[in-house]
Amino acid sequence: MPIPKNKIPDAAVRRLPVYLRALEESMSECAVVTSSADLSARTGFTSEQIRKDLAYFGAFGTRGVGYDTALLARRIRKILGLSRGAKIILVGVGNLGTAFARYNATFPKDVRLAAAFDSDPEKIGHGVGGLVIQPADEMYDHIHREQTKVAVLAVPSEHAQGVAEGLEKAGIEAILNFTPVKLRSGCYVQNIDLSMELQSLVYYTTYAQRDEMKGKAEG
Amino acid sequence: MPIPKNKIPDAAVRRLPVYLRALEESMSECAVVTSSADLSARTGFTSEQIRKDLAYFGAFGTRGVGYDTALLARRIRKILGLSRGAKIILVGVGNLGTAFARYNATFPKDVRLAAAFDSDPEKIGHGVGGLVIQPADEMYDHIHREQTKVAVLAVPSEHAQGVAEGLEKAGIEAILNFTPVKLRSGCYVQNIDLSMELQSLVYYTTYAQRDEMKGKAEG
Repeated sequence: MPIPKNKIPDAAVRRLPVYLRALEESMSECAVVTSSADLSARTGFTSEQIRKDLAYFGAFGTRGVGYDTALLARRIRKILGLSRGAKIILVGVGNLGTAFARYNATFPKDVRLAAAFDSDPEKIGHGVGGLVIQPADEMYDHIHREQTKVAVLAVPSEHAQGVAEGLEKAGIEAILNFTPVKLRSGCYVQNIDLSMELQSLVYYTTYAQRDEMKGKAEG
Repeated sequence: MPIPKNKIPDAAVRRLPVYLRALEESMSECAVVTSSADLSARTGFTSEQIRKDLAYFGAFGTRGVGYDTALLARRIRKILGLSRGAKIILVGVGNLGTAFARYNATFPKDVRLAAAFDSDPEKIGHGVGGLVIQPADEMYDHIHREQTKVAVLAVPSEHAQGVAEGLEKAGIEAILNFTPVKLRSGCYVQNIDLSMELQSLVYYTTYAQRDEMKGKAEG
């Protein structure tokens, strides 16, 4: 049986890679067993949150002992679908796409880019982050042939919706969307909205405290 | 009284800009009142989650009616510290910094970059996203003078820790960290880890379902 989508809350899914990173750290220190308190110290999430998240997919540690580090890491990788290596492509190699591709070598192997595409003839054939930039019009064939399911979308805003539609038709199921466009798509779309990141960041500065004081003074 | 830090859970703080965006959409459609069901439809979060988050800072809608759209937007902006315009600088204008700066014009006014700095003499004086790139060694004076509290860090990894320390000393309180370096800092650090975004994204594809089936077959 496939996992019913949305069985695990999105917020929990987004924490799984953080736990996985912590478990890998723990393994690199040869820890056979990792407690939720240890995971908490490594990730900043509370032990309660961690236990709750892991229970969603039936991973229960041994009370007073903890989780089998390697086993839990393997289970998380399986739940996320990383066990056999996901195939991911980059669509659009402008400044952001280039920056993204350059990070490629620092990414865990299971989520490295398999290919990069751009429509600019001047870019095609050039290397970026260990990949050769391929012509955009070969992209849909590639997706078909390689059974690619994940795309990183970093094209100019005006092309975003059109390209997303083409990706979906070709078989892409999930998009990491760097454009500010709110995509209408049957794919699962994860938006990277940098301005929202900044807005929430300001909360952690004294700007927020001054505003709050001003609010109080105003009544 | 300043807001005690961590009074509102980080996850709720990170949802506030999403609600703010939805309220602004609602206002642009001239909706005087917005219900949590409406916010839910616009954001994808459940009404329960929304009501719980907003209750953290005492924003209670009128039962069966909803929230005063403009008032709630104003309160969220105040809580986040956006009311008077936060001052934000960009540190490092490589590919990622350039991409970030180019989005600047599309950002809400309250979180637009005020300045951009780089140590490469060839970049200094050039324009990016409406800003003139300034020499890195003038950065600390700028932070002091302008009482800047937020920095976007997009320098090469090997410089990240050193630059972060300088920023903290100069008065920066919150950092949006695009480098893969785990910063040791007294600042509030929000990491943008693109590989984790990809790892959680794979969950929403059939890769995950195949892995799950394989898991079952293995016992």
